[in-house]
Order: sequence, then C-alpha cells, then structure tokens
Amino acid sequence: MLPREQIGLLKQADGRLTIDWADGHHSVFHYIWLRDNCRCPQCRHPNGQRLLDTASIPAGIAPTQLGQSQNKEVEIEWADGHRSRYEPAWLRAHCYSAAARADRRKTPRLWGADIASRLPQAEYAAIASDDGALRDWLAAIEAYGFALLYGVPARPGMVIEVVKLFGYVRETNYGPLFDVKSVVNPNNLAYTGLGLGGHTDNPYRDPTPTLQLLHCLSSSTDGGENTLVDGFRVAERLRTTEPENFALLAQNPVRFQFQDEDTDLSAEFPLIGLDARGAVAAIHYNSRSPAPFELDEALVEPFYAAYRAFVGLLASPELQIQFKLAPGDLFIVDNERVLHGRTGFSAAGQRHLQGCYADREGLRSRLAEMNRKRQTLGDIMPNDIIQEIFDAFAAHGDQLYVGEPVSMTEHMLQAAQAAEQDAASPTLVAAALLHDFGHLIHDLPEDSAEHGIDTRHEEVGAAFLARHFVPAVVEPTRLHVAAKRYLCAVDPAYLANLSPASILSLKLQGGPHTAEEARAFEALPFAAEAARLRRYDDAAKIAGGQTPDLEHYRPSLAAGLKTNPGSSQ
Amino acid sequence: MLPREQIGLLKQADGRLTIDWADGHHSVFHYIWLRDNCRCPQCRHPNGQRLLDTASIPAGIAPTQLGQSQNKEVEIEWADGHRSRYEPAWLRAHCYSAAARADRRKTPRLWGADIASRLPQAEYAAIASDDGALRDWLAAIEAYGFALLYGVPARPGMVIEVVKLFGYVRETNYGPLFDVKSVVNPNNLAYTGLGLGGHTDNPYRDPTPTLQLLHCLSSSTDGGENTLVDGFRVAERLRTTEPENFALLAQNPVRFQFQDEDTDLSAEFPLIGLDARGAVAAIHYNSRSPAPFELDEALVEPFYAAYRAFVGLLASPELQIQFKLAPGDLFIVDNERVLHGRTGFSAAGQRHLQGCYADREGLRSRLAEMNRKRQTLGDIMPNDIIQEIFDAFAAHGDQLYVGEPVSMTEHMLQAAQAAEQDAASPTLVAAALLHDFGHLIHDLPEDSAEHGIDTRHEEVGAAFLARHFVPAVVEPTRLHVAAKRYLCAVDPAYLANLSPASILSLKLQGGPHTAEEARAFEALPFAAEAARLRRYDDAAKIAGGQTPDLEHYRPSLAAGLKTNPGSSQ
Repeated sequence: MLPREQIGLLKQADGRLTIDWADGHHSVFHYIWLRDNCRCPQCRHPNGQRLLDTASIPAGIAPTQLGQSQNKEVEIEWADGHRSRYEPAWLRAHCYSAAARADRRKTPRLWGADIASRLPQAEYAAIASDDGALRDWLAAIEAYGFALLYGVPARPGMVIEVVKLFGYVRETNYGPLFDVKSVVNPNNLAYTGLGLGGHTDNPYRDPTPTLQLLHCLSSSTDGGENTLVDGFRVAERLRTTEPENFALLAQNPVRFQFQDEDTDLSAEFPLIGLDARGAVAAIHYNSRSPAPFELDEALVEPFYAAYRAFVGLLASPELQIQFKLAPGDLFIVDNERVLHGRTGFSAAGQRHLQGCYADREGLRSRLAEMNRKRQTLGDIMPNDIIQEIFDAFAAHGDQLYVGEPVSMTEHMLQAAQAAEQDAASPTLVAAALLHDFGHLIHDLPEDSAEHGIDTRHEEVGAAFLARHFVPAVVEPTRLHVAAKRYLCAVDPAYLANLSPASILSLKLQGGPHTAEEARAFEALPFAAEAARLRRYDDAAKIAGGQTPDLEHYRPSLAAGLKTNPGSSQ
Repeated sequence: MLPREQIGLLKQADGRLTIDWADGHHSVFHYIWLRDNCRCPQCRHPNGQRLLDTASIPAGIAPTQLGQSQNKEVEIEWADGHRSRYEPAWLRAHCYSAAARADRRKTPRLWGADIASRLPQAEYAAIASDDGALRDWLAAIEAYGFALLYGVPARPGMVIEVVKLFGYVRETNYGPLFDVKSVVNPNNLAYTGLGLGGHTDNPYRDPTPTLQLLHCLSSSTDGGENTLVDGFRVAERLRTTEPENFALLAQNPVRFQFQDEDTDLSAEFPLIGLDARGAVAAIHYNSRSPAPFELDEALVEPFYAAYRAFVGLLASPELQIQFKLAPGDLFIVDNERVLHGRTGFSAAGQRHLQGCYADREGLRSRLAEMNRKRQTLGDIMPNDIIQEIFDAFAAHGDQLYVGEPVSMTEHMLQAAQAAEQDAASPTLVAAALLHDFGHLIHDLPEDSAEHGIDTRHEEVGAAFLARHFVPAVVEPTRLHVAAKRYLCAVDPAYLANLSPASILSLKLQGGPHTAEEARAFEALPFAAEAARLRRYDDAAKIAGGQTPDLEHYRPSLAAGLKTNPGSSQ
C-alpha cells in the first residue's frame, strides 16, 4: 500500500471524520457525504449505479460507532443501524480538499503556431488495427483539441469509418456526411472557393456538434490550405490582456442563424462560454452566421470593440497553424475549442473534401475505457506526463528568460547540465530541468517583473509537478526562490554575483532572509538540495551555451515520477 | 404598411441614428451596427450568409449622407463611399431597445399537475400526413417540453420513424434505439422492474441528448406508470422560495458517470444550468449516476440541503403528472427540461418500451421552417396566443384571489361579465378578463401582500399583454391599480365600500391619490376606461357567482389582438 493510501490518524471532530494520511495529506469527510456514498449492495447496485436516494437520508445523520477494521477499511455504524465500509484508497481518491480537487482537475494543453513542428498525428492503418495507437491519437485530440490522420483511403464515405473507431456520427440537415467543394448556387459559403476565416461549425445549432472531421478526396487547386487556431488559448490570452473585453464576450450571447429552403436553424451562445466555475468551456464563432446583435444600448460600442479584439487575435500568425491536406489526409477538431478556416482556392483543378460531425462524449468514453484497461494492466503511462512537459517546453520555452540572454528552454537545459556536472542525483537533475516550469504553464506577459508583478512561478510549477513527481523533485523546485533569499543572507559573495535582473526580482521576492528566516529555511526538507539547485540556476544564463537536448533528460524525469516503482521518496 | 413599420422622425444625434416610429416606439441604431448589418450583395451573399468581416470596419465609421428614399428605405452613404439601404420593417424587426428585445424573447410555458387535463397530444396518422398537425405537435413540445402521441403502430423501430418526421436520431453506446424491459444482469437500472424517480437521461453524456422518445410495444404488468415533471417550473419555484439553494445548485456542478464493460462516460453539469443572462436553460439530474460530490468543505452541508430541497420539489404531487402508456402510445420529452420517471412494476406480465434519443435543433428547425411558410401565407396564428392565455388560466387560475372568496379565474370571469353587462366594448371586456393576468404568469407565493410584498402584477401583466394586444386592452389593465387610488381620492363612497383585503393592498400601492396625482391620472390615455374597469374588478368577488366560461370570451380577446386586421387602436 502506498503511503497516500495509508491512514495515519482517524478522528471525529466537529461532526466530521478527519483523516491524516501517512504522506502528510489531510482529509475531511462530512457524515452526510459518507452516508450518501455508502458502497454496500443495498445502497449501490452491482452495476455501479446508485440505489440510495440522497433525499431519504436523515438530515442530522451521524455515526454511533466508527473505526478501522483489521483489513484497514473505515467502518461506520449509523444511528439507524445501517453499516458502511470504505476502503482507504477509495476515500483518498475521493478526498475533496481544495488541493486534491485541484490535482484531479484536467486542464487543456493550450498551443500556438509552434505546434506546427510536432503536429499530433497518426496513420489510419495503425489506429484501425492497434488499440494503443488509437488511444494515443484520441488522447492527443482530447489534449490539443485536434489531430491529423494520414493514409485514410481516398474513397467516399471513409470519414464515417474513422468516426466508427471511437464514436457515432451526428446526422444533421447536411446529411450523415457532406461534400465540401465548389457548387453553383451554394446554400453555404463553404461550397464556394472563398477563403474562410477561423470559425467553429454550426454555432446556429444547439447542441452544436462537438467534433468535426474533414477528409481530403482530391486536391489539385491553387490555395485551399487549412488553418487551425486554439480558441481556448485565444480566450485565455484575452482574459489576461483585456479582461473587460473577455467579460463582455462571456456575458453577452450572440444569436447565430442559418436558413435555406427547408431549414431554419437559430441558437444563441456567447463567443466565449464559461462553465459554472468560470473556466473557458466552449467557443462559438463564425463570421458568416451571426444575426444582428441585440445588446443594451450602452454595450453596443464596447461589445463591438471586444468582438473585433477577439477576431483580431484569432488571425494572429503566432497563434495559428496552416497546412494543406493531400488526398488521404484527414483532420479532426473539437468544434467547441479549435477554430478551422481555409485560404481561398482557384476555380481550376479539383478540391473535394468530405466532412462529418460527431460528438466528444463517444471519444472520451472510448479513451477512458482504454485508459482504464491499461491501468488495470499496470501500465501507468509515465511517458504521457513527460510528453506533456516536453510539449510545454515546445509551446512556451522559446520566450526569453527575462533580462537574460537565453530562452527559458536554454536556461533550464543549462541548469540541468550544471546539475549533471555536479554529479547530482537524477531527481535533483530533474528538479534543475523543471525549476522554472511554472513559467511555461501560465500565460502572463513575459515582462511581468518589470511591471511589479510577482508571478509566483515556483508555486505554480510545484503545484503541477506535485501531481506527478516525488518530493525530491518537487520541493527543491518550490524552494528555489526562497533559496536565493537564503543564499543572499548567508553568502555575501553570492549576493555580489547576482545578475541585474535577478537583483530586480529579489526585491519582489522579499529581499535577503533575516537570520531567523534563514534558520527556518535550513530546517525545511530538501533545503540543502534547493540551495544546490539555486547555484545551477544562477549559472544557467550563458548566451549560446551548448547543452544536450530535452530527450537526454527523459531518464532523470522518469526516475522522479511518483508512478515509477523504483523512484525514491 | 403598419404604423409600427412607418418611420415618423429620422434623426442623427450623439453619433447614432434615432427613429421615432408612427406608433410611438423609439429606436436607436449605432453606426457600427448599421454598417455591420448592411444588406447589400457585397456584404451579404444571396444565400443570406454574411460576407462582410466585422473586424474590417473602421472603428469610427460614420455616414456622410443619411436619408429616406422615395420607397421609404433608409439610405446611408459611408465615409468610405460604401452605400447601405435598410427597409423600415427590417429595422423595426431588429430594434434592440430593451422593450423590443423583451418582446422578442421566448419564455417557456411552465406547468404543473393541472396540465393532466389538457395533455399536449396528437395522433400519429395525423402528424405523419398533415403538416399543420405536425406543426401543432412540435409547437407543443417546444412550449411545454413534452407531448404524447397515440396510435403509433406497436412495431419495433417505429420510434425512429417518429423522429424522422422532424429530425435525426442521436446514436449512442445504447444503439440507435434501445429496449426498456427487465433483463438479467442489467448494466442499467432502467432494465429492471424498479421504480425510477424523476430524472433526465444520460447527464453523464456531454452533449446530453436533448430529446428522448419512449414508445410502448407491450404493457401487461401491474405498475410501470410514467411520471413527468417540468424541471424549469421546479427550478423557478426554488429560485422564488429558496434563492440561496437555487444559487448553490446553479453554481456548483455535479459529476455524473456511467461505466460498463465497454463504456466510461463522465460529465459535469450543475443541476440547474443558467444561460449567460441568468435564465434557467438546462436541468441535469439522475439519482442513479452522480459521482461523489467534490465541493469546498464549507459548502458540503449547504449543498446537500439544496440538493435535497430540489429533489423534494421534483416529487411534489402538485408539480407532477402520471399516466400509463398503452401499446401504440409514445411520449417525447425535452431531456434538458422535463424529468421523467416511472413507478415500479411487477415481474408478471410484459412491459416493453423502445426508446431513442434525438436533438431539439432538428425539431426547432422544422418548426421554424413550417411557421415561416405559414407566415408567408399570411396566417398569423392569433389562436396560439389565446391558447397560451387559456393555458395560464388553467395552470395558475385556481389559486385563491387573496383574501376574497373566489379563485383568480372566477374573479376575472366575473369582471369580464360585469363589463359585458355594462355594454363595454370588446376591448374593454378583454381588458376586464385579463386585468389580473400578471398574477398568473409569475411564481410568487399567494400571500405576498400579507408579507408586505407588492408584486406589481399590473406591470407584469401589461408587459406580456403589450406584445400581443392593442393599447385599448393593455392600458386599462396597466392602470387598474392606479385607478383604485384615483377612485379613492375622487369618490368617498368608493373608498367606503372597499373590501378589507383591498384596503390592505391600497397601502402597499401608495394610498389614495393626492389632488395633483388625480389630475395627472385623468390626463392619461384610457384613464376613463381604467376607472370603469376598476369598478368591474371590485364587483367581481362574489362567492359562487355564475359566469360564462373562458371560451365565451375568445371573440373579445381576438378583437383586441394587434394581429387582427379589424382591431381598433
């Protein structure tokens, strides 16, 4: 049993059950929650569905007895005589502390133009015959909101065969599938040679199709290249840089409409849809189909400004990718996240795509079911996490390390190299490589420090890393800023050698430690490793320094993963 | 041309175009909005899709010339030389004043147990062969969120034939259709004889199917009756009576999940989903499939209380209907609004339903397209509005008229009768029948006045009526409370004869008019009619008084409709 599944101390306090876990985590479980989630066959059918009606539980429900059984299960006898048992691993997996909830939350991997060099892609023959290949392709769609597929036989109807690998076609008034080529008297501008800006399909349809596939059957025109942009990235950029515009677009829905002889579709969505927690959940935008805006008089001009700002960002070259489909190529997009468009194409030659719609729910179910089977087999997918990290380097590592002559990626590779040269352990090498990882996963402007913003990148990074890595990797990373304040206090030579940018940020970080702060720092776990890491960090600012590439450090990262049975605590 | 489509005064002011219409309505159009909605073939493809890119319009766009052409179109020449023309009727139809937007907003017709006596229903043979019958059936589903269908041949697969009349089947892991009967080792409790409380189907699926159909093939068990409840009504009831609980359910999503051997579905929705404007837009609830709640510690107990309050309301007999399907019967529900359930059924005998999912968008498109064709033919559907009014009487008219020995319906029928006996015009008879209509369309508790709440029912009612009726109906209704204050000021005998409940509400309403207020009142249009109406109102409190029924007043209502060419202004 892992320490995270081992109960240290079980207590009743304030009408709740509290658990201190062997790894130091703390959980609180309310009695009503425990009773509601009783796992016994009376409360839950063998098929996993709930039988217990939440409304039938007495309001003040409380245990008459509570303890741990010999096999370590938490056992409760309730006032009405009902008995419940909970496996510690189940309780830990469902702990609802803020930290545990944040750990479990999935966040999309945002991307920009840089993803062009590492497009998520697969071969049709592979995903049609190999569950592992299909799983990886579906996981890429889930993470990035799109993927390419090559080698799909250029025959009509094949796009539906692709959908059948993971879900169900969503039939609409355009049919189960539709042909995209120039026609005379088109009912939709898609069926002309006109260029189309980035858009989501069918925002006039509620529910909107959540997946769209386009499969190239022939292509011999000039132009007609496809463009993609990550709408979630665009929305987050707007939220950061123009929060009022973001709010205007999120709060004021636009009506979209489509009419032809037999069809009269109309639906209302905000361009940026938020979920109940305020996270970006859906993008709806198509320049061809908005109805005239219906806004409060005072909002008309501000809303137009916000709308134009959003549309402007959609067209930013650094957020967009462009590629041309050859016969047999196919792409799939999450149609509530990734906007697709195309450049105009000539009347000469043929361009014939077939498209169809489907829904994410089928894809997600297939992916979850394949992941579940892999996990049952003990395959814990460390490479997925390492790939996610390498993706973040690729997406955001080219930004300058503020005030230094190196990029973020160069800086972190130099730090890892310095650790290796110092014969550091693999976990400390991993910590050196990841020490500024927080900079790569939040979307603040690069010059925040100059504007007096302390981005607390060490906490952002550590929170992410703690989900996947052991404390020997996480803690030096979390402490590397405090370590600078510590070294400035205990080593005058260290302070004298700081770069100008590092002196500027020192002030924001709180200045050198007092004597008392320094003693408290030394008492922290991994304080010594953090101080060593700090020196690698400070040395890693050499313009043009030569280092190994990221791939070289894969074994060090793997050694630090929690899921690696050989990793040290 | 109707006065509402006739421009009285066209002005440029504050960088905007303002229009005073012949019927007194006032519109403001911003220049950027006008330019953005240019109707010319350069800006809009003949198929109706937009060609103009909003982002390409210069920010400070303004007219160099503006006027009305001989054929009454508004013509604008813009600074860049582009010319736009707008038909007055188009401008009026797209006016975005607060009043115009409120007029166009569709609100669902909420219902409770009373709808059992007037179930929205049709015969399969009729809707399969007659567009008018199909339109009425689809309009009922759109308005009430459900409908029944009789005489569907009790053959497997017919449920899909019904969907094909208006839309497309949504295929899922359960197949294009599914059989609901008891089976051994069910993967879903639907396939047992257990009773099921009111629920929406598949809240673990995102997007959730928005329509569900169930068709009865055989039924010879004891029990197995179907129940329906209007989730929007339940949510609005909760919003009125327990606003904190409403907010907790709207703001905190619940995860729903379903797993079997090949499926792993999971999605998160608040029980009460709101749109960007705060209107109730979707209900997701199923007692079988919630995952353990993941809430802030401080919210666990309040959320459970809110959840239980909601589930308790779902089971209220006065909000629920119950019926038993016979072979050949089918019902359809809006699966994000109306919750369905069933009573348990015995193992003896057969109960076999076939179900399938579809989406609202197909239904709404088919309905809108049929309505468009009817309107093109000049059929303006006054009976739809009168039916909506009669529905509100049926749904809410049985409540007591506070402090008086009559129900709301009895009170308003007696007032209409008094108007007829006084030889009032049909529009004043209509006003008398509708004078308290505001009480029937908002969901406040019946004893609001006793708690010091002035519900302003006259404004609520007038706002609804103004969408459909001429001022001769609307204004006396709006003024009937002011008329009471007026009569108390000018007629001491009137004040002396008020009922105790009416004296109590007089205080809330502001007491008798001052002399100045009385003069101002007399100057209002329809003040004399309002005073006459007031006397009918006061006389209409006779316990057991005999009156004609609502149907008797249909001609008076029709005479007062705006859309009636013979109606007087």
